[in-house]
Amino acid sequence: MTHSKEAKKFGDTVRRMREAAGISQEELAARCGLHRTYVGSVERGERNISLANIVRLARALHAKPGSLLEDA
Amino acid sequence: MTHSKEAKKFGDTVRRMREAAGISQEELAARCGLHRTYVGSVERGERNISLANIVRLARALHAKPGSLLEDA
Repeated sequence: MTHSKEAKKFGDTVRRMREAAGISQEELAARCGLHRTYVGSVERGERNISLANIVRLARALHAKPGSLLEDA
Repeated sequence: MTHSKEAKKFGDTVRRMREAAGISQEELAARCGLHRTYVGSVERGERNISLANIVRLARALHAKPGSLLEDA
């Protein structure tokens, strides 16, 4: 588990954008080809997520990858 | 080695910003607390870099983390 300030902010941003899109963690995970529990841990700031997965989440949220790091 | 399109674009952005700042890979690495060879492999697009290291590079380049992903 990471729980760094950056990971927490990133997770908060993902959650906010996912909720704005009106989709569940499960739906977001399915769109990314990731596991629901992984997406949950990202939203809780427990993951030092990689660039590849940042890009996957951004695409699934129809957002630019950089926009997920705006608060970082 | 990753060599994904995203990793390549990210590396190109880091290199461009580092050169614009007029510093060597060695100097950038020292500012980040990372190894010079690691920074070189990031610039060549060979790394699936993590959020924590994206943030370290951005701070060393006096840039916002999201700006390093603008071309991703």
